[in-house]
Amino acid sequence: MKSILAEVITIGDEILFGQITDTNTQWLGAELTKIGIRTVRKSSVGDQKDAIIGVLKEATERADLVIITGGLGPTKDDITKVTICEFFNTTLDRNPEALAFVTKFFESRGRQITEINAKQADLPLNCTYIPNDWGTAPGMWFNENETVYISLPGVPFEMKNLMQHRLIPMLQNHFETPAIVHKMILTVGIGESFLAETIAAWEDALPGHIKLAYLPSFSQVRLRLTGTGTDPIQLRKELDEQVAAVLPLIQQYVFGYDDDQLETKVAELLSKKSWMLATAESCTGGFVASQITRFAGSSAYFVGGVVSYSNTVKVNQLGVKPETLNQFGAVSEETVREMAEGVRKNLGANVGIATSGIAGPDGGTPEKPVGTIWIACSTEKQTVSRLLKFGPHREQNIQLTSVHVLNLLRQTLLEEQEE
Amino acid sequence: MKSILAEVITIGDEILFGQITDTNTQWLGAELTKIGIRTVRKSSVGDQKDAIIGVLKEATERADLVIITGGLGPTKDDITKVTICEFFNTTLDRNPEALAFVTKFFESRGRQITEINAKQADLPLNCTYIPNDWGTAPGMWFNENETVYISLPGVPFEMKNLMQHRLIPMLQNHFETPAIVHKMILTVGIGESFLAETIAAWEDALPGHIKLAYLPSFSQVRLRLTGTGTDPIQLRKELDEQVAAVLPLIQQYVFGYDDDQLETKVAELLSKKSWMLATAESCTGGFVASQITRFAGSSAYFVGGVVSYSNTVKVNQLGVKPETLNQFGAVSEETVREMAEGVRKNLGANVGIATSGIAGPDGGTPEKPVGTIWIACSTEKQTVSRLLKFGPHREQNIQLTSVHVLNLLRQTLLEEQEE
Repeated sequence: MKSILAEVITIGDEILFGQITDTNTQWLGAELTKIGIRTVRKSSVGDQKDAIIGVLKEATERADLVIITGGLGPTKDDITKVTICEFFNTTLDRNPEALAFVTKFFESRGRQITEINAKQADLPLNCTYIPNDWGTAPGMWFNENETVYISLPGVPFEMKNLMQHRLIPMLQNHFETPAIVHKMILTVGIGESFLAETIAAWEDALPGHIKLAYLPSFSQVRLRLTGTGTDPIQLRKELDEQVAAVLPLIQQYVFGYDDDQLETKVAELLSKKSWMLATAESCTGGFVASQITRFAGSSAYFVGGVVSYSNTVKVNQLGVKPETLNQFGAVSEETVREMAEGVRKNLGANVGIATSGIAGPDGGTPEKPVGTIWIACSTEKQTVSRLLKFGPHREQNIQLTSVHVLNLLRQTLLEEQEE
Repeated sequence: MKSILAEVITIGDEILFGQITDTNTQWLGAELTKIGIRTVRKSSVGDQKDAIIGVLKEATERADLVIITGGLGPTKDDITKVTICEFFNTTLDRNPEALAFVTKFFESRGRQITEINAKQADLPLNCTYIPNDWGTAPGMWFNENETVYISLPGVPFEMKNLMQHRLIPMLQNHFETPAIVHKMILTVGIGESFLAETIAAWEDALPGHIKLAYLPSFSQVRLRLTGTGTDPIQLRKELDEQVAAVLPLIQQYVFGYDDDQLETKVAELLSKKSWMLATAESCTGGFVASQITRFAGSSAYFVGGVVSYSNTVKVNQLGVKPETLNQFGAVSEETVREMAEGVRKNLGANVGIATSGIAGPDGGTPEKPVGTIWIACSTEKQTVSRLLKFGPHREQNIQLTSVHVLNLLRQTLLEEQEE
């Protein structure tokens, strides 16, 4: 079977000039992979006609599917539609179905449609109109000379909804796709090169149609196995066998697979024990709580937390003893343990986790340089604490601390489960 | 003066398959813009030799500067260096300076260097070695046929450090760059198309060398003016005049300029009054606090916060009355006002902000559908509250709520300043 090759093109000076974060192409790459379409290139070009036509021509030579996002807004800097017309040698025409949709969209929000809004309904004559349920810029599908072109609005949730509910089914219907199967092993607490040394012999013995990649980020390394072939069930079985073979070498670092996240694994462990969690944060400033509450349903196992930036809050809300703060300081094993115990008791939780450290870039001392961070986890049975030593980068320190305190929580929950 | 054109290439299957977020190209685009180098294209290709050589050849035809990131790690999936050698028709050689650096890097961490680590010092013979202070994959500079090529590791903080401290000065020294000047006007609380209608006449009258772009995100629209020419001082003056001309039309929505952020503007206003802030969060789950504490020095104006996911925490930590919760529910104007007042008083702050709502995707009722969110801001003088109505998307609701409650805080601080 022939591989279906895709290229993703994002349009916008704001992307080239680094003024917005492009999350669309990542998401599109992942969705295409899931249906066995292989993304071979992503490109971003500016809002210039020549650049857009150039990249469209190049992509046409390489790909079976070209997806274009961005440049469909109502304002004057958006020239995508006009340029697409030039590329296909066609013209814009006001699409009655699209106009009815845009009119209704504004009316349902109690607003009159303006001429700028109405222009959203002007579409190239050769396109199939794909309604956008959540916005006014429509999707467009073109099928020219055995290549499919899709144009999508740049607003992420509109683009995602259009793809998921309209275009993915159309693509699956249109193309005959090969089987690409992924399996991800998620590790925490081991560096990339040491992981590579540990599994070198296993990796060397992988068959040619199974590829391995290391995806490191913030004290976590994800190992991605990709199998390509024709039979997804056979491929899945082969990947599972490879995972079973490597697992004994790295068991202690593995916390999950595929879409698992530390937060969701912790959630599972808490739910299994019917335990409630509370957080006490100094240096992470609410980041740990926000990571936990990103997930729907977190109120089932998360009671709440205290962000104790000032010592007064540590004393009054968490019950840290003023003597402890005086004697050992806010960034100390003694303080972080009292924070974890205090938040557990004061908020009526079964387990409390705490962070206290110098996130930086300022505030370090010779004894406690920037990046010195204490974490703790407290249950009725025990309180465990760890010292972390990171570098001078505030954002990184906050994220790394969050990973480590959640991993400490995970380890504590596993340990108390086994007893 | 000739414009210096750049292309940025990222290498890695993990980027095409959507398994990691690429933040490098955004940052690089912004940094190049600052020194007057215009990024004309960004491309991502997989870890395949042909694809890498193909994109290098294309970029060479269009650009004066080609920056390659990623694919330099020690593990086996990284083939960038070998492919660069093929592209330049040269070979890898162990660079003594790079080897000494890698050896020292591991020794200073109490580790023996392995052969896999040592390979990091193998560099193409035609490159200038650029030491990476924070990691083991080096930077490389090539100057071939009037094109400069830079290869950088993919780890963001290593890449950024290499650029800032080593390569930006080299680029400024090597190229004679035109003047590109940006000015960003930051608005909150007005949609893109209504903003466009409001300033249409002004926009139409902009001279040809000044471009306007709308950059919308989460209830904020940034207006970017870009001036291109030869004299940066003259361009800056022209942009300032354009800003002065448009400001009267949109004054009430403008909260800042350029790199300002809502959080930093709020920080300025708090610092000016020597006020301390406290946060009480239900539906935002710590996100608001984490946004405030992202910024170094936030302990000067942020005392801390409470994440009150459970009603018990609302009552015990924030002093919300059980009757209020019983009569009006957790998601109500009455409750959110008591939360804001309670956190201000209990945490000893001058001003308290609070959020309570149904972030979704579940938990809605006919009277209070998902996306119903109350926010409040309380000072000694007054407590103000607002009802927000958003859609079904949890992440979006959390981010939008954070923007709105920080804007409510900003408006309250401005108002009390004027009195």
